[in-house]
Amino acid sequence: MSTWLDEIKWDEKGLLPAIAQDHKTGKILMFAWMNQQALQLTVEQGHAVYWSRSRNKLWHKGEESGHQQIINDIRLDCDGDVILLSVEQKGGIACHTGRERCFYRQLVDEQWQDTDPVLKDLKNIYSK
Amino acid sequence: MSTWLDEIKWDEKGLLPAIAQDHKTGKILMFAWMNQQALQLTVEQGHAVYWSRSRNKLWHKGEESGHQQIINDIRLDCDGDVILLSVEQKGGIACHTGRERCFYRQLVDEQWQDTDPVLKDLKNIYSK
Repeated sequence: MSTWLDEIKWDEKGLLPAIAQDHKTGKILMFAWMNQQALQLTVEQGHAVYWSRSRNKLWHKGEESGHQQIINDIRLDCDGDVILLSVEQKGGIACHTGRERCFYRQLVDEQWQDTDPVLKDLKNIYSK
Repeated sequence: MSTWLDEIKWDEKGLLPAIAQDHKTGKILMFAWMNQQALQLTVEQGHAVYWSRSRNKLWHKGEESGHQQIINDIRLDCDGDVILLSVEQKGGIACHTGRERCFYRQLVDEQWQDTDPVLKDLKNIYSK
């Protein structure tokens, strides 16, 4: 096992929170989880690979949608238990709803308000 | 219970991952957890309150260090299970190591390299 992977503190399920940030705009695109294999593949292949907790398998981001996240930079936090990816977002769409980012709901007057437009219909994203 | 809190999907421990981003620079400052009370207090008081999993209690960020995070904007992701805070970081230091941000380690040639300077000695942060 590589040393840089050993320095990471995986949680009790062997997972690590991962934040993806657009390398140009600085916008937070999404949040997901990685296991060790996902992070290793991310580094080796140069695009984000997550661990899908709902599907219980590796999730090569963009494998269906084409919306890959090309790795620009990888950072670890002080406690060694969270990872930050700076990425180039292919297609300009990170969210499965067809929006640029997953954080499209803003708290305004105690209500969640959608602030971001849907850039592409779901049927056009996943019809391949 | 308020409606906007009901829309959040807390995990099996009643917690929610929270990302704090500097509202001016866009830098990711830190990652922590909130329970419902922490998020409610964050909104009511206008500065970040987290749930400390190690100390098992509410953590009013900056209560010892003075490094409060004043809330500028709160966003929720598509799945409703991660929160993003845009904050003004008091003192310009978010990390308990005395650095601007917790994500000061960059992966370079399969090694984690420190990239950010310590802006303030720990003994000067927590000596109050």
